[in-house]
Amino acid sequence: MSSISSLPVVTGNAAFTAKVSDVRERLESQIPTTLRLPSSLLDNLPLDVTGIPESCGLLSENELAITDLDATAVCDKIAKGELTAVDTVTAFGKRAAIAHQLTACLTDYFLDVAIAQAQELDDYFKREGKVFGPLHGLPISVKDHIPIRGRWCSVSFLSTLAVSTEDCDMIRILRSLGAIFYVKTTQPQGGMTLECLSFYGRTLNPYNSNLTAGGSTGGEGALLAMKGSCMGLGTDAGGSIRAPCANCGLYGICPTAKTLPTRGYTWFQYGADGVSQSTGPMCRSARDMKTFLHAINSAGAALSDSSLIPIPCAVPDLSQRKLRVGIMTHDNVVLPHPPILRALEIAKQKLSVAPNIELIEYIPYDHDRGYNIIRETYFEDGGQIVRRHLDAGGENITPLLEWAISPPFTKDHDAAGIHALRNERDKYRFNYSDHWNIAGCDVVLCPPGPGTAGLHETMKYWGYLAIWNLLDYPGLVFPTGLKADPSIDVIRESFEPMSDSDQYNNSLYDPELFVGAPISLQLVARRFNDGLLLAAQEIIEKVIKS
Amino acid sequence: MSSISSLPVVTGNAAFTAKVSDVRERLESQIPTTLRLPSSLLDNLPLDVTGIPESCGLLSENELAITDLDATAVCDKIAKGELTAVDTVTAFGKRAAIAHQLTACLTDYFLDVAIAQAQELDDYFKREGKVFGPLHGLPISVKDHIPIRGRWCSVSFLSTLAVSTEDCDMIRILRSLGAIFYVKTTQPQGGMTLECLSFYGRTLNPYNSNLTAGGSTGGEGALLAMKGSCMGLGTDAGGSIRAPCANCGLYGICPTAKTLPTRGYTWFQYGADGVSQSTGPMCRSARDMKTFLHAINSAGAALSDSSLIPIPCAVPDLSQRKLRVGIMTHDNVVLPHPPILRALEIAKQKLSVAPNIELIEYIPYDHDRGYNIIRETYFEDGGQIVRRHLDAGGENITPLLEWAISPPFTKDHDAAGIHALRNERDKYRFNYSDHWNIAGCDVVLCPPGPGTAGLHETMKYWGYLAIWNLLDYPGLVFPTGLKADPSIDVIRESFEPMSDSDQYNNSLYDPELFVGAPISLQLVARRFNDGLLLAAQEIIEKVIKS
Repeated sequence: MSSISSLPVVTGNAAFTAKVSDVRERLESQIPTTLRLPSSLLDNLPLDVTGIPESCGLLSENELAITDLDATAVCDKIAKGELTAVDTVTAFGKRAAIAHQLTACLTDYFLDVAIAQAQELDDYFKREGKVFGPLHGLPISVKDHIPIRGRWCSVSFLSTLAVSTEDCDMIRILRSLGAIFYVKTTQPQGGMTLECLSFYGRTLNPYNSNLTAGGSTGGEGALLAMKGSCMGLGTDAGGSIRAPCANCGLYGICPTAKTLPTRGYTWFQYGADGVSQSTGPMCRSARDMKTFLHAINSAGAALSDSSLIPIPCAVPDLSQRKLRVGIMTHDNVVLPHPPILRALEIAKQKLSVAPNIELIEYIPYDHDRGYNIIRETYFEDGGQIVRRHLDAGGENITPLLEWAISPPFTKDHDAAGIHALRNERDKYRFNYSDHWNIAGCDVVLCPPGPGTAGLHETMKYWGYLAIWNLLDYPGLVFPTGLKADPSIDVIRESFEPMSDSDQYNNSLYDPELFVGAPISLQLVARRFNDGLLLAAQEIIEKVIKS
Repeated sequence: MSSISSLPVVTGNAAFTAKVSDVRERLESQIPTTLRLPSSLLDNLPLDVTGIPESCGLLSENELAITDLDATAVCDKIAKGELTAVDTVTAFGKRAAIAHQLTACLTDYFLDVAIAQAQELDDYFKREGKVFGPLHGLPISVKDHIPIRGRWCSVSFLSTLAVSTEDCDMIRILRSLGAIFYVKTTQPQGGMTLECLSFYGRTLNPYNSNLTAGGSTGGEGALLAMKGSCMGLGTDAGGSIRAPCANCGLYGICPTAKTLPTRGYTWFQYGADGVSQSTGPMCRSARDMKTFLHAINSAGAALSDSSLIPIPCAVPDLSQRKLRVGIMTHDNVVLPHPPILRALEIAKQKLSVAPNIELIEYIPYDHDRGYNIIRETYFEDGGQIVRRHLDAGGENITPLLEWAISPPFTKDHDAAGIHALRNERDKYRFNYSDHWNIAGCDVVLCPPGPGTAGLHETMKYWGYLAIWNLLDYPGLVFPTGLKADPSIDVIRESFEPMSDSDQYNNSLYDPELFVGAPISLQLVARRFNDGLLLAAQEIIEKVIKS
């Protein structure tokens, strides 16, 4: 294993190469020299680098203790005066610098700005004797394409790289709640793959550098797993919050779209509204998802943004009734790798005997059709705008993005074609509502993907995640606490592929390569049932981990 | 004034003409011979035909009394056992037959089926001692393109005419609440003009047959004004509920889109989702709008249709605070005709001294830009699908539809063009949210159109209505109780046109021609503030009519 500076980046023409060199120099120069890991370490990294922040000697005991906290604990301790905002952001900022050197997860680093902001908050707290807002002093790491005033921002086409002139709505709201920003994080070229390769480099999975951190919010995945952050802000239109959270053993929710503000987020094809992009938190505890959502709800963003749907995330009390949990082992398109199936089998056994749960076998409704519809909907122009962005930057396309925008899954539609496609989408949604209602589930427990974190350049099957984006059903992932283990998760003896994607996915599996990968599960609820989803997750995780 | 049978219809080729002849014969034969008005009357109709149902001698005193009731009173009386469902629907059904002969408002008539359904409800009430649902026995008239099992249905292209094989969701839900269906009503060719001319004929305004009943839910407008119905079901994507209600002196609300079920409604371009079609009630009292919305909310339709947004229409108590009412006299594009300006001036005077109201001048935000965006969005294919439907039926296009689909307002877009257009729409919506918030209005009182009901073939300016569809802000219209009066509403002495549309609109005005036209106003609220809108309307109407 070699240093991340030798990892592949996206290639391009001479102008591109020169500019990328400047960008990478800028980023490297932002990491304080006092926080540089020695090359002796970087040149001989283990597969699993999650222990290095503790062992490297760059962080104090107190800093290690702070970065062990989840966001809810951070907010509580600051509100009680047990912790300052400056100490908090300093600890996370230092650890983020270390995380970046091990996983290439950052795109911008501005701890100095953050500390100044933290100092103002500490002053306020001292002066007023109360917090500025519910997220007072909480450091939040932010995906690259979400604009923060004065910070670098792109959709990971070099042609889109610029310093943002203003905060987007979400950032403005989080600031008004007391949050602090200190880093921005990687995403793949165009933000449209479940990996994380861009002109900034390739983001690695901290638990196993053979594997991807996931995408598109991959930098957050790696950073949070390294505890260089306790709260990340991502976006998800096809799995981009959930894939990296699942890959890196985190909690992450893709809320029902348009319930949280995305006004001002940069994008590469504005107005392509066939699928809505959702935004949400990526966390190290289940309760942190609630902390984030409740704080945002309290800001009443819908008043100033009529695109938002003002349905607050109300978490119901489920103690007085049985929870109806559907379990879906696979989607009839791709059979997940053995580690995922093992976790589902354990979950099934435990849930089936839990007194407060009624477990039912959930039969997927034509997911292949749905996945094909959403793939076509992502690129209604057959990827022309992607190519224009690439051309503008002299940038070569990455193999996975090339695959995503290519026929037969996409085509360049005329107006009639777009209307027909959206009608197919609407019919599928109607059919799915009916199907789910007949099943009568509160929630469905299912794989978060066709395996744990995948090998680099192999994450081609988004079906387990994107299907819920097409339906706009909120989905979350959570860690089971289990990890891929070559001694248990052996290659299956017989295999009858259900599809070409299944054949491909099966061919990728080699137990030795996936060692140590966190095993996560996904939970999904009906549209607008985000609160129910969170309540159900708590119950289900408790049973599974009992 | 001559009989409606001599009114113009849409023309076409020989096959079209033959089929239309059959269709009109079918419809004529559905009207019971016992309810036919004498030709001596039909050949010598007054401009205002609203008094004929009472004077013609075909309805009993009891039937006239029943048809004077609003929907809320009908439901109350039936629930108390003071009225039977059979008597109710018989009365409205008979009056509808008369209304149709005077205004050409129906497309299907099935009183026999309705009476059988009413009998079942009466039997239920007798047997169970309670109502079947909150709308038990309420006859509801339904716009042509909304499918009722076994009844004729079209989007008013002849090529789309067929008998529906099943109820759409809304009809199924209304049935489950106890409603009865007995007639379907006219709309214009393609449902896309603010008038009502189709292969079924031309629908007249009952108050003045020189004028249009409005569109696209024009048949409902005429039928309700004739008291041939007390509750109509319409759709609105550019004013189609509000225009006919305003033209015919009725109450009608275009709710925030996707808060009421439209699954199963027929349409001519499925998947053209740039503007959402809303659906809602058309009524003869303000309270009937609430009765309808509360009943539908109680059915929990969102559970079985994930496209719905489960925000119930909660009507707030405004007695403890001042209502902030913006008043907009014109939209800086077209100055309304004198009757509308007179009503606004009276409203302004009264509202400005009302103790519970804070009246502010509302400045419109670039309505011309918004109107151009929505016009282009309606026909993203430049009207190609419209022409295909016409060709399929051998049908000639009506002048107003031709105007609506023609350049420069529409064009045939490619994918990039559609995305760019939708991005313009989204930016306009964002800008408008900001603008409204700075104004800080609860509601805005404004014209419902560029005048009262217009002369036939002249309703070209939709801006006062369509702008709120583009924004998806709920809007309602209500009658002021005033009518156009040539002695007061004289031609203005000087006129400086603000736009070509303004010039055109001004050229149409001749006080004598509009005599007797009801003068209505429109009230609008922020998206999802439907309940606030209803509460505010009640207060404002009371002040205006004090």
